[in-house]
This record gives sequence, C-alpha cells and structure tokens, in this order.
Amino acid sequence: MKVSVYRKAHFNAAHRLHRKDWSDERNQATFGKCNNPSYHGHNYELIVKVKGEIDPETGFVIDLKVLKDIIEEKVIERFDHKNLNVDVEEFQDINPTAEYIAVVIWRILRQEIKEDLELSVTLYETPRNFVEYSGE
Amino acid sequence: MKVSVYRKAHFNAAHRLHRKDWSDERNQATFGKCNNPSYHGHNYELIVKVKGEIDPETGFVIDLKVLKDIIEEKVIERFDHKNLNVDVEEFQDINPTAEYIAVVIWRILRQEIKEDLELSVTLYETPRNFVEYSGE
Amino acid sequence: MKVSVYRKAHFNAAHRLHRKDWSDERNQATFGKCNNPSYHGHNYELIVKVKGEIDPETGFVIDLKVLKDIIEEKVIERFDHKNLNVDVEEFQDINPTAEYIAVVIWRILRQEIKEDLELSVTLYETPRNFVEYSGE
Amino acid sequence: MKVSVYRKAHFNAAHRLHRKDWSDERNQATFGKCNNPSYHGHNYELIVKVKGEIDPETGFVIDLKVLKDIIEEKVIERFDHKNLNVDVEEFQDINPTAEYIAVVIWRILRQEIKEDLELSVTLYETPRNFVEYSGE
Amino acid sequence: MKVSVYRKAHFNAAHRLHRKDWSDERNQATFGKCNNPSYHGHNYELIVKVKGEIDPETGFVIDLKVLKDIIEEKVIERFDHKNLNVDVEEFQDINPTAEYIAVVIWRILRQEIKEDLELSVTLYETPRNFVEYSGE
Amino acid sequence: MKVSVYRKAHFNAAHRLHRKDWSDERNQATFGKCNNPSYHGHNYELIVKVKGEIDPETGFVIDLKVLKDIIEEKVIERFDHKNLNVDVEEFQDINPTAEYIAVVIWRILRQEIKEDLELSVTLYETPRNFVEYSGE
Repeated sequence: MKVSVYRKAHFNAAHRLHRKDWSDERNQATFGKCNNPSYHGHNYELIVKVKGEIDPETGFVIDLKVLKDIIEEKVIERFDHKNLNVDVEEFQDINPTAEYIAVVIWRILRQEIKEDLELSVTLYETPRNFVEYSGE
Repeated sequence: MKVSVYRKAHFNAAHRLHRKDWSDERNQATFGKCNNPSYHGHNYELIVKVKGEIDPETGFVIDLKVLKDIIEEKVIERFDHKNLNVDVEEFQDINPTAEYIAVVIWRILRQEIKEDLELSVTLYETPRNFVEYSGE
Repeated sequence: MKVSVYRKAHFNAAHRLHRKDWSDERNQATFGKCNNPSYHGHNYELIVKVKGEIDPETGFVIDLKVLKDIIEEKVIERFDHKNLNVDVEEFQDINPTAEYIAVVIWRILRQEIKEDLELSVTLYETPRNFVEYSGE
Repeated sequence: MKVSVYRKAHFNAAHRLHRKDWSDERNQATFGKCNNPSYHGHNYELIVKVKGEIDPETGFVIDLKVLKDIIEEKVIERFDHKNLNVDVEEFQDINPTAEYIAVVIWRILRQEIKEDLELSVTLYETPRNFVEYSGE
Repeated sequence: MKVSVYRKAHFNAAHRLHRKDWSDERNQATFGKCNNPSYHGHNYELIVKVKGEIDPETGFVIDLKVLKDIIEEKVIERFDHKNLNVDVEEFQDINPTAEYIAVVIWRILRQEIKEDLELSVTLYETPRNFVEYSGE
Repeated sequence: MKVSVYRKAHFNAAHRLHRKDWSDERNQATFGKCNNPSYHGHNYELIVKVKGEIDPETGFVIDLKVLKDIIEEKVIERFDHKNLNVDVEEFQDINPTAEYIAVVIWRILRQEIKEDLELSVTLYETPRNFVEYSGE
C-alpha cells in the first residue's frame, strides 16, 4: 500500500527578485516591486510530501518526527529569519523566485530522503501564490 | 525543471441548479434546495494551476502578475457579483454545477495560456465542497 | 467564573443591496455592483457568542448542542439556500447589508437565549469583510 | 469531461500508536508520546475525492448530498467521538497510524462508490501532519 | 500605549465529559457522545492574549519568545498527547469541558505573567466550538 | 444600533528589530534572530475594525469600498513590498516590532476615519503571533 505523507513547516525570510547580470532597468521592468533594492519578505509555508510503501512494522511510510527533524535541520535552520539573497549560499547565483526556492529545497531534501520514496515540495509565498516541484 | 505555479482568486455569485427542459418537479427532486427559484449564492474560491518549464531568464514558469491579470480580466470581471444563470453567457445553456463552472473557467483560461503549459482549475463552492478540472 | 462560548455555523444565500424607495440611479451610485438586479451571493459564516457563568453542575455556560440546534432551527433553516431579499420575511423592508443581517440574526437569537446570558453575533460576508453586533 | 469532486468531513477521536505483539519498551521507543497508555486524540479532517465523467443529465460526477451521506453513515458515525483502538472494529488488529486510518477509510468507501469512479482519501491528523491514499 | 499581544499554540489530547459523582445514566443523558467511556479527543488550539503597556526600551509588551516558552513549559508539556481526565492533575476533580479547560489554563498562566499585564485565554476544541476566559 | 465593521488586507515586507542607539551585542541579546543585519520578512495580515452607528440611509457603518480604498492608499501602497526599516519614514526612529507597526498604522488610519467612529487595528506578523491596538 502506497501512501503519501505530508508535513507542513514555515520560515520567515526577506528576498528580492534580481539578476546581478542585468541592468537595474531590466530588473525593474521584469520584476517590478519584487525588485525593491532594500528587499521585502514573506512567511513562507512549506509542505513536504513523501510517498512510498507503508512499513508493516511501524505502520509509517516515514516517521513524521524524523521528517520534521530533517526539514527543521536542513531547511528551516538555514532559511528562517534570513535574507535569502544575502545569507543563503544557494541563492548567490540563483534568483530566489518561488519556483527556484522550491527547486532548491527539493534538492536539499532529496539527499536526506531514501531513494525509494518519492518527494514533492509545495511552497506558499503568500496564501494566494504558491508553487510545487516534484523533481521532473 | 517543471514546476506547477498556483494563483488563488475569488468571486461572489448567485446561481441555482435548474434545467429549463425539465419540469419543476424533476428539477426539485434532483437538485433539492439548490433549485430554489429565487437563487442562492456562494463565495467561490478559484485556484488556477499552470505547469511547465522554468524560464531560465526570469526564473518564472509564468509571471504571476500576468496570470493574475488574465484571471481577473477573463473570469473575475465576468463572474463576480453576477447571477451565473442570468448574467453569464456560458450558463444560458449549461447548468452551473460546480463541475460545469470549473469546465467553463478552464476553457476560458485555456485560450489565454500558452499551449506548452498545462492548466488545471480547482473551484471551491464552499469550504467543504470543491471540484478540479484539468482538461481530460 | 464568566466564560464566553462560541459556535460557528454557515449559510449560502443570494442578496442584493437595494432600497425600493430609491431610484435605480441612486441605488446604483450608492451600492455599485452589490446592486446587481439579478443578485449575487455569499457563503456567510456566522459566529454566535454567548457569555455567562459556568453552571457548576454541567461545566457548561450553555450546552453547545442546544446552541447549535437553536442556530440551525432559527437561522440556518430560514436563511440557507435562500434569496435574502425575496425569501426572508425580515428583509422585505430592511436592506440586507452585512450590518443589518447581523442585527436581524441577533434579534432572532436574543429571544431564544436566556436573559442572563450576553449575546454577540459576528457575520463574515467574505473572508475579508465581516461585522459584529452585540445589541448596543 | 472528467472532473474530481471533493467533500470535506471531520471526526474527533482518541487513539494511541501501539502494537499488542511488542513489548512496552519497543512500543515506547518507536512511537514515543503517541504511545501514551491512556491515549490522546485529534480532530481528524477527512477529504474524499471522487473522479469521473460528468453525468450530462445532472451535471454532477456524483451528487454531493449522496457522497456526504455515505461519508456520514459509513465513516463519521462509526469513528466520531470514539476511541479508534478500543471502539472501532478495524483497528483491533491494525495500528491506527494516520496511514492505516486513511487506508481503512478508503476500503470502507470503495465499497460504496461506483467502480467507474476513482477514489482518493486525504486525512489530516493535525493541520501540519496529513496523508493521502488512492488505492495503489 | 496599551497593546494586546497574542500567541497561538496547540496540543492534542483525549478526554471525556463525565462526573464521577453521577450515575452512568445521568452522565450519558447530560453529556451524550462526549461521555464515551473509552474517550475521544481533539486538536486543541490555544490563543493566549496578554495586554499591557509597550516597554519603550524593547518595543514589546512581552517578549513573544518568553511567552511562547511559558506556554510550552507550563501548558503544552503537561497537556499534549495526554488524556486530560487520567493524566492531568487538575482534572481529577474538574470535568474537562472546554470552559473548565480554559479556566485551568488561565489559572496556570496567571501565575507566570506579571500582574500589571491583563491575561485572556481562548481555546478551540474544534474549529466550530471555542471558548474564552479572562478571569472574570 | 452600533455595529463593528472589519476589513482584512495584507502586505509583504522586510524588517529587522534593531535600535540604532544600542550596541550590536545588546541588540543581538535582546532581539535574537529578529536582529539579523540583512533582515527577514513577513506576510503581514491587517484587520481594521471600525465601530459606530449604522447609517439608516445606506445600512452601512462605513462603506467597505471606501474603507478598503483608505487602507490601500494610506497603508498598503506605502508598506507593501518594502523594507520597513529602510523605506518607511515612520520607522526611521521607531523599532518595527509588531506592537509599534500596529500603533503606526492606527495613527495613520485615525486621521482618515471620522471621529465618531471607533478604530482598532489587528496585525498578524505570523499566523501564530499577532497584536491589537485600539488607541488606549
């Protein structure tokens, strides 16, 4: 029996959409108010989905306490109360759009979750704007 | 990298479930209190999902400001504060069940979103009743 | 010990803002798209607050099953899946603004709740617009 | 046209994670505070998804009143205000992890929903922990 | 300047409504399915409100990290994943209705919060049933 | 009849807690990770409450379209997608704690709302931390 298990977490971060290799004009024209030089921020809501067979011993696909701790240690501690553009290594060369933040988080977690488990990441930038990445 | 991007919107509308080609008795028997001749209404919540490759230039699958404006212009302005049965052209011959409203919105948006992007529409009639259509 | 007890309920209804004694022009100028002649509608969320002493016998201020049944019988059955302007007696001469709907519901419930209990009614017209009436 | 229809319901239940064939030490080591001998509990939120062709007669995939009644009669009446381990037959030999509760509910509902309709069950144990089962 | 500061927390617990000094019949007649001998449970949501002057040094009424830790240590650690009737000292002689749980939490927190700060406790038993106690 | 009318809005902003007249050590010791020099951010949710007599002409305490426009023009346009510490005049000399942001918004709106109407501002910094200011 294959079941999907979801764990929700959140982090608060500042960011701006900006390409260092573009002129200020082009950045402003493309990213609008999201390009504000002094940054803005979000309460990011993160939903991590892990899909796989139920372990008949425990009745778990993955122990949610374990999944919670992985998310906490590998994502939240590194992203929470940070400026994504300034403080987080992965975004030195990647523009922190919601799409790329989801991809970065997926890549971080993919290394921590056993290979036979499918992984998907949903990231809410606001309650009205969100994205999902599954490794495709 | 293929990412799904979601945008949430809402509209407030009146409707009733009713087939003009059926007797009042059959309408009442089939649709119950949703058939009330003087209508009832909902705060419809709409979630539009667009899935495709991230544009490496912008980091966007689709610019959410653009998606927001398409939804606003093509759906919300035509459906919000309206009576679906009376005021909206598409429902002159289609019974505005949640299923068909989702299909109608999908068809409207499909013409506005580039063909290489997948499109899916989720429509909440109430927080407890909702539907999803992906063009199948 | 005085405790406030809250019970949430909801109803789906059509309405329009309109004064019969005003011209169409004045109605339209004052109420805008809420004046649409063929109505629009909402999922109204209702929160009823009852405040009073805890009964030391039961540990209840009021039995929530009793409160639920009063709200169901006196408000929901009369308002749900209705057109407030057309189908509900109280709005034949009262414009169903959120403010007046809350007042009408408070008056209905005030007759059903014991006098030594305080009563307050909060009504959500949308998740972003809501009102509260306490009998002042 | 294939549409997914969703209905949300909820039940409040006590449970503990515990295998009768394991020692207390192993149960405690594996399930931690979820193994508390005197139980704890949750407000379980249940979302049932039914996917199929729209019936051109009614405009419904499935009449949501019918789906609501099936969920009420077959799941809620048997699980609500119960102790899953003690009061519910299916969990006499199955550990009531969120995963297995979703599987059990899916199996109950699968017998009630017509075969040409796909069925999926999402179960929230808390707003942060949830699971989904589709019969795979 | 007097500001109210709110902190939300939650705990999952089993309980039943039951008076040891009443017959089973009277308990059943008064508390209905909430009297189930093998218990049921809830995801309790707790909102603690502290009102007072803004400290001009810090800009805080109370440091929310401090408030969070007080709630965690004094309430959540004692109530979470517990059976209120069996495991929590305060409910050996008090029936754990939502009203009395709120009163008990208020009394616990009142001893931890400085006297010049007002304290109020809101407790959600379900998203539809909740109570508030302010020490009156 | 006195009714409270509520309007919800939101803005996304970066900020940090920091006093320019304190040493870095004292700032760090007092504000912890909220003191991060490169900022973090939030999706601030704002609820504005206006209480007063219902105007018997319109049935409104205040026209919600008018209230919405005031909030939009005076608060959202100035705070949204901004860095509160850097971009917003009021916080050049005020530490942008949730408490002081609520006070600043209240003072801005107080000048726009008629004097015979009571005004209250609730500000969510996160879904778990929020504050309320009413001019006391």
